[in-house]
Amino acid sequence: MTRWPLPDPMKQALDQARAGADRGEVPIGAVIIRDGAVIAAAHNQPRALHDPTAHAEILAIRAAAAALGQERLEGCELWVTLEPCAMCAGAIAHARIARLYYAAPDPKGGAVDHGARVFEQPQCLHRPDVYSGMGEAESANLLRGFFMAKR
Amino acid sequence: MTRWPLPDPMKQALDQARAGADRGEVPIGAVIIRDGAVIAAAHNQPRALHDPTAHAEILAIRAAAAALGQERLEGCELWVTLEPCAMCAGAIAHARIARLYYAAPDPKGGAVDHGARVFEQPQCLHRPDVYSGMGEAESANLLRGFFMAKR
Repeated sequence: MTRWPLPDPMKQALDQARAGADRGEVPIGAVIIRDGAVIAAAHNQPRALHDPTAHAEILAIRAAAAALGQERLEGCELWVTLEPCAMCAGAIAHARIARLYYAAPDPKGGAVDHGARVFEQPQCLHRPDVYSGMGEAESANLLRGFFMAKR
Repeated sequence: MTRWPLPDPMKQALDQARAGADRGEVPIGAVIIRDGAVIAAAHNQPRALHDPTAHAEILAIRAAAAALGQERLEGCELWVTLEPCAMCAGAIAHARIARLYYAAPDPKGGAVDHGARVFEQPQCLHRPDVYSGMGEAESANLLRGFFMAKR
């Protein structure tokens, strides 16, 4: 069987996730793309930063907005290795991210296609296009390996 | 009629909201209390900081966690002038805030008692005790004045 190669942004998000795991953080990575170029990349680091909001998506969004010197990220894509939680989905809407690509679904904590389904609320002011599944096995393996090693 | 005086933390959150309005930010303020003392206070500032995540609650949570040098804010109270959105409600759950006091409800953007109802999702790992209504008129007046002046 020939496997379809992963798009570069998802490869980079997975690399970020691995870098997080190496530092003892839950392995989740994110990159933000604008006009085909990476403008921000981050991994989870609530522990190192003493910051409960320091999910990969939040750090990447903050870095991208700072780099562009603007509050919103219209036209940008966010690639992340796990389905975003309610906090991150809310931030994605506030940032006006155009397209969201996530690898693995997260039935326990995701809030895009599970739970709070933030983008499906009638109040949601901005809904990105959402694509999922590419890199799912790689992302799930990273998370599984991390949590098994913790036990 | 005698009006019940506002608790000090809500007065301080409203002062923060006013400080935000003076700087052209949507007037929403938040303070975090631990053992009766203010450990963080902030107002909305996505514009000034070029940061779509810079809601009052997120800034206060990040400041409090940094001040304590820890990822979680167990035992802390968050006082905020408006019902938190999905992003902020998610952050409150991640931070393990014990008690949430919000002034005005926000049917258009709130995600505690409206919309995504983040804390009511079966997946939500931590639910603060939630109290609302104190300072509602003051908060609503600040917001109304701000948006009327914008027109």
